[in-house]
Amino acid sequence: MSMAPAVILVRPQLGVNIGAVARAMMNFGLTDLRLVRPRDGWPNVDAGPAASGADAVLDGARLFDSIAEACADLHLVFATAMLMRPITRRVVTPERAVSELKALGLADSLPGGLLFGPERTGLETADLAIAHAVCTIPTNPDFGSLNLAQAVVVFAYEWMRQQQTMPPEELMHYPGPAPMQELENLFVAIDEKLTENRYYSPAPGRPEAARLTLRNLLTRPQFTEGEVRTLRGVVRMLAAPRVTSAPTGGKR
Amino acid sequence: MSMAPAVILVRPQLGVNIGAVARAMMNFGLTDLRLVRPRDGWPNVDAGPAASGADAVLDGARLFDSIAEACADLHLVFATAMLMRPITRRVVTPERAVSELKALGLADSLPGGLLFGPERTGLETADLAIAHAVCTIPTNPDFGSLNLAQAVVVFAYEWMRQQQTMPPEELMHYPGPAPMQELENLFVAIDEKLTENRYYSPAPGRPEAARLTLRNLLTRPQFTEGEVRTLRGVVRMLAAPRVTSAPTGGKR
Repeated sequence: MSMAPAVILVRPQLGVNIGAVARAMMNFGLTDLRLVRPRDGWPNVDAGPAASGADAVLDGARLFDSIAEACADLHLVFATAMLMRPITRRVVTPERAVSELKALGLADSLPGGLLFGPERTGLETADLAIAHAVCTIPTNPDFGSLNLAQAVVVFAYEWMRQQQTMPPEELMHYPGPAPMQELENLFVAIDEKLTENRYYSPAPGRPEAARLTLRNLLTRPQFTEGEVRTLRGVVRMLAAPRVTSAPTGGKR
Repeated sequence: MSMAPAVILVRPQLGVNIGAVARAMMNFGLTDLRLVRPRDGWPNVDAGPAASGADAVLDGARLFDSIAEACADLHLVFATAMLMRPITRRVVTPERAVSELKALGLADSLPGGLLFGPERTGLETADLAIAHAVCTIPTNPDFGSLNLAQAVVVFAYEWMRQQQTMPPEELMHYPGPAPMQELENLFVAIDEKLTENRYYSPAPGRPEAARLTLRNLLTRPQFTEGEVRTLRGVVRMLAAPRVTSAPTGGKR
């Protein structure tokens, strides 16, 4: 994993949000939390419970007097903002920001960071000027104001997504498809019962088409050997002669 | 935009989380919220304030007695889970789940959905069996338990990310680079002052190398006409003869 970016909260207002940010960071493998003049000082009693166990991140949080000091050792910094105000600045998506931070870490182990503004107002224009570029989360234009921790989740998730080696799709605890012969036996068993029960229309070509449909339907799911056995049992029981319920006066 | 997936909260415990889910959904353009047996009934007084204005989503939330009923009209359903338990099931990333939901909506306007389990325990094995596939958010293996609303944020953000037409990078309010002549004039002005002040080493080849460095440095940022003008002013003032502060007894 390349060097994870620092999360810098600028003048955060609520301790619960700082705690929720710590939790989200730790969920996705980020650890470097920096606080610039939190409104209610630091430490904040509300942060711990909201962190739900992400104490390592909270305990390691560092306090700074200015954005410049908080970013002093960082080589690439993105400011997150909704951009209501015009600004002459490079604006990127979270995907792009994270990939640039990742490339930097991979290439030279240079740390980078992400700036997040106060809950109510976001970063000010003067704050944005400190960052190399602005990053905007794509949101609903009519309801774009994200909770602070949820904005952090987007970046932290992007970080994890771009690191991950997990394939987009995998089968868990799947022993693989049954041998073809087992599937064939299942098909034959079903086919025999269906023929016996006059399932197939006698019209020319119809039985063949129906069998093809059935074969496709049974083959596509790649049933395991165990599943094919289960299906054999189900077919056998479905086709068994009806047991009349509570046969009164029957033998025994 | 294609048909947005429903968010189905299964036995959610806290009203604040339901509210935070509604906010996250609305932030990213999702609107269809469904609740299966919320622990504290419905409506829940804690949900409104946590929704921070996403009342349209909360007011439209529908209540169901079972997952099966909540999913009755949906064509493709993913269950979100951490998968501590072994299960024979297709497991996909959020990216993959959303792209499958999107493809479905684009192709046939068939609605799909995402199941989220209760805060403390997540979905049970029996709940997972109802869904077509399981979706796991990639997280820190040692600290993987996400807040409910933050798990929803990941999918809602993925949905928006995969819909978005915003380019990964764009320059805002950028009138384009200055005419080359302006940049050349700036370079010449700097060069003249530097020569005057003996900035360049007299060693063979050194002035040329230094000029090349300077030219690269001034060209790469693609300064606008206004920025070049600002730099001309800065250079002029830097190179101006020092004004002795508060000249006492000087002429006028």
